[in-house]
Amino acid sequence: MKTRFDLDQHDLPTTWYNVLADLDRPLKPPLDPRTNEPIAPEALAALFPRACIEQEVATDRFIDIPEPVLEVYRRWRPTPLHRAVHLERALRTRARIYFKYEGASPTGSHKTNTAVAQAYYNRIEGVERLATETGAGQWGSALAFACRTFGLDCVVYMVRISFEQKPYRKTMMRTFGAEIFASPTDRTEAGRRILGADPDSPGSLGIAISEAIEEAIRSTATKYSLGSVLNHVLLHQTIIGLEARRQMESAGETPDVVVGCVGGGSNFAGVVLPFFHEAKTRSRPIRFVAVEPRVCPTLTGGETRYDFGDTAQTTPLLWMHTLGHDFVPPPIHAGGLRYHGVAPIITHLVEDGIIEPVAFDQTDVFESAVLFARTEGILPAPETAHAVHAAVRIARDCAAQDEEKVILIGFSGHGHFDMSAYAAFLDGALSRATTGAGASTAQLGESRLFC
Amino acid sequence: MKTRFDLDQHDLPTTWYNVLADLDRPLKPPLDPRTNEPIAPEALAALFPRACIEQEVATDRFIDIPEPVLEVYRRWRPTPLHRAVHLERALRTRARIYFKYEGASPTGSHKTNTAVAQAYYNRIEGVERLATETGAGQWGSALAFACRTFGLDCVVYMVRISFEQKPYRKTMMRTFGAEIFASPTDRTEAGRRILGADPDSPGSLGIAISEAIEEAIRSTATKYSLGSVLNHVLLHQTIIGLEARRQMESAGETPDVVVGCVGGGSNFAGVVLPFFHEAKTRSRPIRFVAVEPRVCPTLTGGETRYDFGDTAQTTPLLWMHTLGHDFVPPPIHAGGLRYHGVAPIITHLVEDGIIEPVAFDQTDVFESAVLFARTEGILPAPETAHAVHAAVRIARDCAAQDEEKVILIGFSGHGHFDMSAYAAFLDGALSRATTGAGASTAQLGESRLFC
Repeated sequence: MKTRFDLDQHDLPTTWYNVLADLDRPLKPPLDPRTNEPIAPEALAALFPRACIEQEVATDRFIDIPEPVLEVYRRWRPTPLHRAVHLERALRTRARIYFKYEGASPTGSHKTNTAVAQAYYNRIEGVERLATETGAGQWGSALAFACRTFGLDCVVYMVRISFEQKPYRKTMMRTFGAEIFASPTDRTEAGRRILGADPDSPGSLGIAISEAIEEAIRSTATKYSLGSVLNHVLLHQTIIGLEARRQMESAGETPDVVVGCVGGGSNFAGVVLPFFHEAKTRSRPIRFVAVEPRVCPTLTGGETRYDFGDTAQTTPLLWMHTLGHDFVPPPIHAGGLRYHGVAPIITHLVEDGIIEPVAFDQTDVFESAVLFARTEGILPAPETAHAVHAAVRIARDCAAQDEEKVILIGFSGHGHFDMSAYAAFLDGALSRATTGAGASTAQLGESRLFC
Repeated sequence: MKTRFDLDQHDLPTTWYNVLADLDRPLKPPLDPRTNEPIAPEALAALFPRACIEQEVATDRFIDIPEPVLEVYRRWRPTPLHRAVHLERALRTRARIYFKYEGASPTGSHKTNTAVAQAYYNRIEGVERLATETGAGQWGSALAFACRTFGLDCVVYMVRISFEQKPYRKTMMRTFGAEIFASPTDRTEAGRRILGADPDSPGSLGIAISEAIEEAIRSTATKYSLGSVLNHVLLHQTIIGLEARRQMESAGETPDVVVGCVGGGSNFAGVVLPFFHEAKTRSRPIRFVAVEPRVCPTLTGGETRYDFGDTAQTTPLLWMHTLGHDFVPPPIHAGGLRYHGVAPIITHLVEDGIIEPVAFDQTDVFESAVLFARTEGILPAPETAHAVHAAVRIARDCAAQDEEKVILIGFSGHGHFDMSAYAAFLDGALSRATTGAGASTAQLGESRLFC
């Protein structure tokens, strides 16, 4: 039985899909926090290259991928689509489970899709250096790779507690030649302010964002790069879903459900938005299930309102689901899902009832991750394992109802740098952490989820 | 420019290549150490399944790969062949460098190619459980995956010092459901004997082999599995080179040089032997360069004689290059290359002048590994980095001579589980370890190597 559906290199998509062309109502604009008025795109010119700012508000349905970006993509793209028949058999389900595998990228996750595009656009506009923040290091290592590829310098503010506890992603970034600092640092005013109040601060993503932005603003040769949330970042990730559509077609399938994990939302959007386009243009009903950790339940337990993207309130205000910009999630292993907010595009589609959010406990998530590894041979990253768990739950419900369903998992990355999390789970030492704000909402989410 | 040469799944080879059909003189047989007479194949029946024992002495040129093995291979095979143009540019060389990437397998190295075949043959012969040893854990994790895939139990004796210092491979094996013991254990006579003499023994591959063999012998439901050295293991790895031949053809190239790292020799044989066949049948001169660590210089500094495969002298005697079965290599990071002996097939071809051995220091090797990562975006395993370094040296010599050469690297695996080695190198804390027995021989090897 054929279980892997490769796409020929000639079939690599040459455009990204821009969902802004297909929304029934416009996105609420980002606001300038000083005036509460919509922020002009040019106000972002100190941070981002012109091309990305244009993409932030573009309304063309398809946007050309520059040839030099395609050339880098071709090192590992198109990524494979697999059918998880061994998992299906273990679950004794009639559901057919597919997964789109982004772990094949140089740094092991989907993050390279936008890192390469952003580095390229900065490069052709004469930028010499990119500053960014990273938590567990997935984003930082993707940007370090992309900067090295296009000959840019790269400086990464890494949340101090991850810097100390997760040395391997840091080593990967160093191998690619990036400069890495444990944030908060004394290199920025934002960092010095925090250290003044608490010399032992473990740092946070919010603080690291503020430091990277400050570094970008003070030099014209340096710009800032963000790994999720913004429209242009989600745009670059749509290559995942565009490939997956063709691969599902070649498998003779249309998904009934697409599931993905959600932190800032870029991986989820990447796999889902092209299928949203398909559902819309071909009037096919497809369910889109967004999976988050129960202890950081942005979509299932947050408010929908304007909020800052960072703790230090330096970003524009974004209309999004938020747990509050000062929310500090518990230290679960899925570091990429520990974000208080979410991409405005995701919030928009949740408000319109198109995306269904759900939240799970990390112990349940790891149970499915181990089941997946034992059946399919691939160890999911803790973030990805959230999507895997949702697929497992849906497939089990299908088995109980004797229903067929075609499930597509956006498999954002492998777990090679998260083995300590697997060890903790196998040792029974993983905390359930059920006491998050979203527990009851998540129950609601679950009951809506399944066949 | 096209830099990745994928092979369609339909073109996955369906046979392995058996070099025993093409040797100019017969291999020297393994001997029974009690009689010094050739050992009868059936004497190995307590350890290995019948199919593997037959393959050990088979003379058919091509041997069918069973369909259930092909089905598992198809999860990640054919693996990609890349042209390393970015590395070429950095080296300002006219050499064209290709690499056959085995890091795409579930456990990140070539080891799965034989693990899957061995688990399958054991399964169909009614075996319930496989015992093996592992050093750094590449082999153990491959066999753990393969056993899980075919429903066998798996018990791994892991060298104690690696068990303690390298927890992540151990976690991967546990995730696949294997039982792992820090060797020496008190589960076997061999282990108890060692512990009696030295309760704090750090263990060695030789001891772990003895324990695994003892466990296999005492139960008919359990057999033993070896990850390198033996003919049938090398046979299973030839899928690498068979694919690479077709991919090089589709790139319009024939290699002038094929380089690979050598520990027990299975990865090297896997990529090289099918090109040996090509060189022989099409009278094309191809150089085959075997790369080893200077501090464990089996081929460049060892003797050629009959020796045991393990420290405790429980295996048959094999005709091979050896540093002596009690040789303990320094603890370099390339754990997979720390073996006192080598596959008899490799020794045979070195004796015949077909394979050219060379040895390098690990600091030089890591310099090339970092260069490779920074240009090609992939972090080689420390073992693989030895082959990368040889290719870099050859390409640099080509640049100096303004010569064209086509170099093919057998890229055995990624370095995701070896990041501490990269950190040590970047910190300048990696020992050069130039004082191995092979230093002068290796210099000789180097001078012979290049354009």
